[in-house]
Amino acid sequence: MIAELIVENGVVLKGDGTPPFKASIVVDEGKIVEVGDAKGFTADEKLDATRCLAVPGFVNTHTHLSMTLFRGYADDLELGTWLRDHIWPVEAKLTSQSVRAGALLGVFEMIRSGTCAFADMYFFMDEVAEVVKKAGLRASLSYGMIELGDEERGKSELKKGKDFVRNYNGYADGRIKAMYGPHAPNTCSIDFLMKVRELADKDGVGIHIHLLETEEERKQLGENGLKKLEGFLKDDVLAAHCVWLSDSDIELLVQKGVKVSHNPVSNMKLASGIAKVHEMLEKGVCVSIGTDGCASNNNLDMFGTMKCTALLQKIRLMSPTSTTAKEVFSMATLNGAKSLGIHSGIIEKGWNADFICLDLTSERMLPLHNAVSNIVYSATPYDVVSCVVDGKVLMRDRKVLTLDKSEVIDEVEKAVEKLF
Amino acid sequence: MIAELIVENGVVLKGDGTPPFKASIVVDEGKIVEVGDAKGFTADEKLDATRCLAVPGFVNTHTHLSMTLFRGYADDLELGTWLRDHIWPVEAKLTSQSVRAGALLGVFEMIRSGTCAFADMYFFMDEVAEVVKKAGLRASLSYGMIELGDEERGKSELKKGKDFVRNYNGYADGRIKAMYGPHAPNTCSIDFLMKVRELADKDGVGIHIHLLETEEERKQLGENGLKKLEGFLKDDVLAAHCVWLSDSDIELLVQKGVKVSHNPVSNMKLASGIAKVHEMLEKGVCVSIGTDGCASNNNLDMFGTMKCTALLQKIRLMSPTSTTAKEVFSMATLNGAKSLGIHSGIIEKGWNADFICLDLTSERMLPLHNAVSNIVYSATPYDVVSCVVDGKVLMRDRKVLTLDKSEVIDEVEKAVEKLF
Repeated sequence: MIAELIVENGVVLKGDGTPPFKASIVVDEGKIVEVGDAKGFTADEKLDATRCLAVPGFVNTHTHLSMTLFRGYADDLELGTWLRDHIWPVEAKLTSQSVRAGALLGVFEMIRSGTCAFADMYFFMDEVAEVVKKAGLRASLSYGMIELGDEERGKSELKKGKDFVRNYNGYADGRIKAMYGPHAPNTCSIDFLMKVRELADKDGVGIHIHLLETEEERKQLGENGLKKLEGFLKDDVLAAHCVWLSDSDIELLVQKGVKVSHNPVSNMKLASGIAKVHEMLEKGVCVSIGTDGCASNNNLDMFGTMKCTALLQKIRLMSPTSTTAKEVFSMATLNGAKSLGIHSGIIEKGWNADFICLDLTSERMLPLHNAVSNIVYSATPYDVVSCVVDGKVLMRDRKVLTLDKSEVIDEVEKAVEKLF
Repeated sequence: MIAELIVENGVVLKGDGTPPFKASIVVDEGKIVEVGDAKGFTADEKLDATRCLAVPGFVNTHTHLSMTLFRGYADDLELGTWLRDHIWPVEAKLTSQSVRAGALLGVFEMIRSGTCAFADMYFFMDEVAEVVKKAGLRASLSYGMIELGDEERGKSELKKGKDFVRNYNGYADGRIKAMYGPHAPNTCSIDFLMKVRELADKDGVGIHIHLLETEEERKQLGENGLKKLEGFLKDDVLAAHCVWLSDSDIELLVQKGVKVSHNPVSNMKLASGIAKVHEMLEKGVCVSIGTDGCASNNNLDMFGTMKCTALLQKIRLMSPTSTTAKEVFSMATLNGAKSLGIHSGIIEKGWNADFICLDLTSERMLPLHNAVSNIVYSATPYDVVSCVVDGKVLMRDRKVLTLDKSEVIDEVEKAVEKLF
């Protein structure tokens, strides 16, 4: 059979608990058609994975991609000062050019660090969609709607959200899914959220929202406040942060099938609090991992965010056995894919061909006692050698093929000059 | 004047709070002789730093270098199980070959990730010293003495410690300092520690020790227990961890001038607890940063450890303004150098030529709103392009010049096969 791509001479970590084994991966029409012996297959394109480990690509389930432009701009500040005096004034000056520039830098960083898919919520999302199309990544994109209980504003925001969903859901050969992105329950009224729910049901798309990130928000919502959102919460909701959940909130999330995106680095940097990841996983919530935007991380590195996920639960519970490398790796791959409703996260026949190859000769991957442990606790972005999404090679030998780095740098420099 | 090395076309971050500026760095006889205009200087060797940022190299003040061999071997376990069933049985099988192999992998990783100097405590330290000499790094090395209140064992351990100090202090053109390394107050009696103190005073070398890493150790020592060590504690003591300090303990450390090595990743991974870094810095303790060994980190990445240092204090105190990027960067450079008694940590005339160059075109260094913030919160090991120690270029264009990577891999594979 003639396939599109054969990845050969490598070791495969399927991501389903199977130990790594020598195998070829054969890809056709964006799907994996064989993991094992490639005899009987030929392909136009080959990817040599000698001394490499193929693993499912990461899924970053919460970010604001274009905030790469804010990297290092305002750190070590109180949340209010940070937002009011630094972030919001610059955000008010964002244009389609600057959002495009930030998104270019973001997708470049993602491909180089092994992220194959992500969920984004921001402004000028048509620009982000075009950049994702060009880069070749998979993404769930939403326009961030802020209503503040203002009916007129609500109407206009809803229109923008709706337009984006209807223009871009299924865009870029289906690699882009659109979502509705109501910002948070403390910036959007319950009436507004219910209108969003209605539209999402009608359009058959999911909803991306910030939920209970801060103690302030918890207080505003009141005890058992999540009950108020009962009609809004369904299994198509991707809720970022979920730091301040009560036990009954967790029960409600389980019951509704809500997906949670855990953002440990951001939660630590802004001192928001520590999410009960251990308890959520135990009760069966699908918890994935997000970096959040570069203003509060300050990069899009899923390796560092995985490591922080494990470390933070261990220290919170004073238990080194909590939240293992294996659990964290699944959160960053399979759970992420489930949260975006995509058939990725396992290297197996019939699944999306979304995977990366890691350098087994990297000083951080040696020795190879335990591949998953090395990935979660030791590896860094540079250890990613190649990146395949939807069967297309986006990076080969650490060189991004779909983007021109000097163009990325030029665009970023132009945008920064205008904004700051 | 003819100098040994000129680093040209780059931007310099001196490390003393001065903003980055364009400058050349002229180096002779291991020292910086000019930072600014290189007119009037010629040199045999040049290092092109175009689009690079020269910054002081990192000082990793607590590790067990050869434990790179244990990377990923035993994770997510209770401390007791981890030590008794996994670490100690393999450590008992260590030989000079395996320690050499682990040290080779360790120094390779350090050079590649921007560490110029480190403090190590382990076994077969003559092997480690030879590896450090070959690699070209600066190090404070100590043989780890465990006495367990056994007089005979104490004598033999002390002899080994003394032999190492007397053979290796000042070795490798003075780049290696020897220290005494009594393991910890819960594995060494106070009598033993006082004998160590006497020897250290006599030999004019420092003491490297683990101190109050766990709550268990705190309980064993009793309240105000550090008072018992009053005669032992001096300003030449480098105390690793210091997680379980009372307020009066901190006062005592200030009074005695004891140097503290903070190991946030290890403390989180083993769920040891969170050190009061913010309070120690506020009261004037010289706190530096260590990775600890690769069994409890699992790498030697000072970037990740810096980031964790800031994040962990912020979340502990629920204050995003605590422990800033600037403070953390100083901990990882100048404070580290002070703790090892070396004149490094600032790029300035008369100081040791120990610095690294970072890639300003890296996706994680863009945009450059704040260099220190990008280094602490965003950069990763790969962003280090070159590394200079004692005026010698150890890495150029990301290629380590003093070590052969295939030899490192071969030695590691041989050692792992024998040990595990």
